[in-house]
Amino acid sequence: MTALLRPGTGAIRACHLTIRHTNSRPVNVELINTGTELMLGRVLNTHQQWICHRLADLGYTVARQVAVPDTGHDIEQTVREALSRADLVITTGGLGPTSDDITRDLIAKLLGRKLHEDAAIVKHIESFFKARNRPMPASTRVQALVPEGAIVLHNPNGTAPGLGMRIEDRGSRIEDGKAAPTPSSILHPPSSTPKWLVMLPGPPRELRPMFNDTVVPLLQRELPLTEPFVCLTLRTTGIGESVVEEKIGAQLKPLVERGLDLGYCARVGQVDVRLAARGQRGTELIREGEVIVRAAVGSHIFSSNEEDIESVIVQLLTAHKQTLAIAESCTGGNITHRITNVPGASAVLLAGLVTYANEAKEKFLGVRRTTLDAHGAVSEATAREMADGARRETGADFAISVTGIAGPSGGTTSKPAGTAFIGFASAMETLAVKVFNPYDRETFKQATSQQALELLRRKVLAAG
Amino acid sequence: MTALLRPGTGAIRACHLTIRHTNSRPVNVELINTGTELMLGRVLNTHQQWICHRLADLGYTVARQVAVPDTGHDIEQTVREALSRADLVITTGGLGPTSDDITRDLIAKLLGRKLHEDAAIVKHIESFFKARNRPMPASTRVQALVPEGAIVLHNPNGTAPGLGMRIEDRGSRIEDGKAAPTPSSILHPPSSTPKWLVMLPGPPRELRPMFNDTVVPLLQRELPLTEPFVCLTLRTTGIGESVVEEKIGAQLKPLVERGLDLGYCARVGQVDVRLAARGQRGTELIREGEVIVRAAVGSHIFSSNEEDIESVIVQLLTAHKQTLAIAESCTGGNITHRITNVPGASAVLLAGLVTYANEAKEKFLGVRRTTLDAHGAVSEATAREMADGARRETGADFAISVTGIAGPSGGTTSKPAGTAFIGFASAMETLAVKVFNPYDRETFKQATSQQALELLRRKVLAAG
Repeated sequence: MTALLRPGTGAIRACHLTIRHTNSRPVNVELINTGTELMLGRVLNTHQQWICHRLADLGYTVARQVAVPDTGHDIEQTVREALSRADLVITTGGLGPTSDDITRDLIAKLLGRKLHEDAAIVKHIESFFKARNRPMPASTRVQALVPEGAIVLHNPNGTAPGLGMRIEDRGSRIEDGKAAPTPSSILHPPSSTPKWLVMLPGPPRELRPMFNDTVVPLLQRELPLTEPFVCLTLRTTGIGESVVEEKIGAQLKPLVERGLDLGYCARVGQVDVRLAARGQRGTELIREGEVIVRAAVGSHIFSSNEEDIESVIVQLLTAHKQTLAIAESCTGGNITHRITNVPGASAVLLAGLVTYANEAKEKFLGVRRTTLDAHGAVSEATAREMADGARRETGADFAISVTGIAGPSGGTTSKPAGTAFIGFASAMETLAVKVFNPYDRETFKQATSQQALELLRRKVLAAG
Repeated sequence: MTALLRPGTGAIRACHLTIRHTNSRPVNVELINTGTELMLGRVLNTHQQWICHRLADLGYTVARQVAVPDTGHDIEQTVREALSRADLVITTGGLGPTSDDITRDLIAKLLGRKLHEDAAIVKHIESFFKARNRPMPASTRVQALVPEGAIVLHNPNGTAPGLGMRIEDRGSRIEDGKAAPTPSSILHPPSSTPKWLVMLPGPPRELRPMFNDTVVPLLQRELPLTEPFVCLTLRTTGIGESVVEEKIGAQLKPLVERGLDLGYCARVGQVDVRLAARGQRGTELIREGEVIVRAAVGSHIFSSNEEDIESVIVQLLTAHKQTLAIAESCTGGNITHRITNVPGASAVLLAGLVTYANEAKEKFLGVRRTTLDAHGAVSEATAREMADGARRETGADFAISVTGIAGPSGGTTSKPAGTAFIGFASAMETLAVKVFNPYDRETFKQATSQQALELLRRKVLAAG
């Protein structure tokens, strides 16, 4: 089902073109996230982003996402409404053993399906607790209840399985506020296409593998796409969204008129350009689009494979068998944290030295007291000496450094909060550049880190 | 309107009790987030968490949150449905100058209100560009359009103002798919209470100050609460959600029966216990609840003011005029990054040394080669020497260290991935403890960092 286009011989390097088949009418998906903690703003809804992203890459469109509290009425009403519109409804949460886990029960009632205990699930729950040397609480047994006709989605990372239910639409409808319908009654509007309802557990560590391992195959089997779907995301940095749009928008217009779906997504220090298309000529549209984007902003593109810039750098350094040292002040460890988020970073990173105090800059990086006195800690000269020192003291091939004023306090007229210097050192050269990121503290750290990583990426590429 | 209960003389230290007045019927709020990038999973919906959290603390309940793409039909349908149920509907996004910014226009049409250009907004946009020495694009002028009768919510951080509209409900209804109603027609169900529709711009840097400065006063004036609302969040660490629930659930049950609203929110290494209550006896309920929670899990509570543990530590160290050094290996800079996220961290943090390579542990922290050879880099002995070294080399009052195996690779039978040692050093003592966090790489880093910070918090408190 999946074809991955490999880099061509020309300028096109399409590395993330996933080919899927789609119906001429797209499959309409709705997502329902249950949880009172969501409504109280106690947690971020990471399920929405993760599930929507996965589905979009597979060629399925999430038309609506709804979050509701763990109350019977809200969940019931939302599921009923979604089933009246969508081909596939996915719910998250409410499958656990506690008293506010009511999704399974409510949906069984709504659809008029009886619950029965599944012996295989009971066995799984028992062995799950046994493997952890913990007694099995009686309350967990409720997770073995399965509505009649439902498919059990195995949960190797927890006790609550997911559930998939095929719902035949025979023309009747479920009215809000009415009693539960009989098992044979169904949903509005009338249609002969079956609908699917998939219930997933709340913990991301359980939901994500379950989605990949069981929901994706279910989708491809039961709600298959019949038309090719292609998408490609080109990630850029060092260039604003409006500038990217200005440079490529007009040129891509004829392709958009021929069916190319063009989207921009801006985050701190990064603008993603997403090209998507359906139909037999989708691949051609994407390839033509990619040529235009690369010609216009190619030097800013660091990934065509949805990788973070830190992953790209770790891969480059690993491939070249080169090592890295990082000297940070105002970014406070964020660059090192990002690099070490990449599995395998230990093969390239020797050390990250967060020299917050001036004394630490002198002691660990050998920055000279005379430089600090003459130019200040936030200066081009200090950034250069920090990068040089990090390289010298660790023996790394490359070093980057950052010194600046994160704010909110600490700024001066000549060096306002947001000012930073980024240094770079290699066997070939030492340099430093000034940047200005007058944002809140965390955005400043993220933006400045991104600029330092981009400088490093370009230098590593050039040294290649 | 707000009363902050100060620490009492007894065991109760209620620092975050916000008193609000509420109607006997709670104000029903719905939130609509527009944006195709949300549906494609390209961005996290941080608006949901932020707005829901702010509203919950003010005593308002978000009953439903919906995300829809930037298409006319979806936005129109969702706004219509929300207005038929809620007292207050808040939309985010779609107020900018580009072609997919259609919220303002759609809602004006839906409510049958004409748009007129507001001279003050035009002036604001002009001066916004002038201050930045940039030409004003003609397209931005659309942001000065205001539906008749709408209140303009000033945007000092951007060009698109927010809009607030009072909608009188006179008994008629807007039907899905019908033509736009006349200005005098309104919403279902019939009621004499006015509804409010508030439109906010998408960028968080614009939305958040606007919400605090204009939406909160509007709410308190137009949809005031008439009954006291009180809430208190106690943040714990080092104890699992099910254990917290086991220790306090049964004891709190009588209070829950008297009207206490009890909620748990678990994230990596942290469980929040939220107590909320309405009515004249709300404060009493919360105080009684807090006594029970503190008696049961008090030593695990690090904040009753919704602070992060890193903020608590920076405050403690600042108050005691003490300094900190951090030596990290497997957490890769995450601890230092978290500490430096706190404004004012530079007053307490001297250095964070991310000694990923063994050579870096020796060079920067003075860990002995014999220790590394005899015990390995992931060992109690190495963690102790790292903490000692960080303290000695920087002259800090306290040092913490972490060495372990983040995974996915690098584990052995005796030290599987997830194993880590946390070290601590002060003038009084040096120690190290073993922890086991067998999670994915980023969760491992976050969980291990949290445990190291909690060890530090307890030691600083004890030394205090």
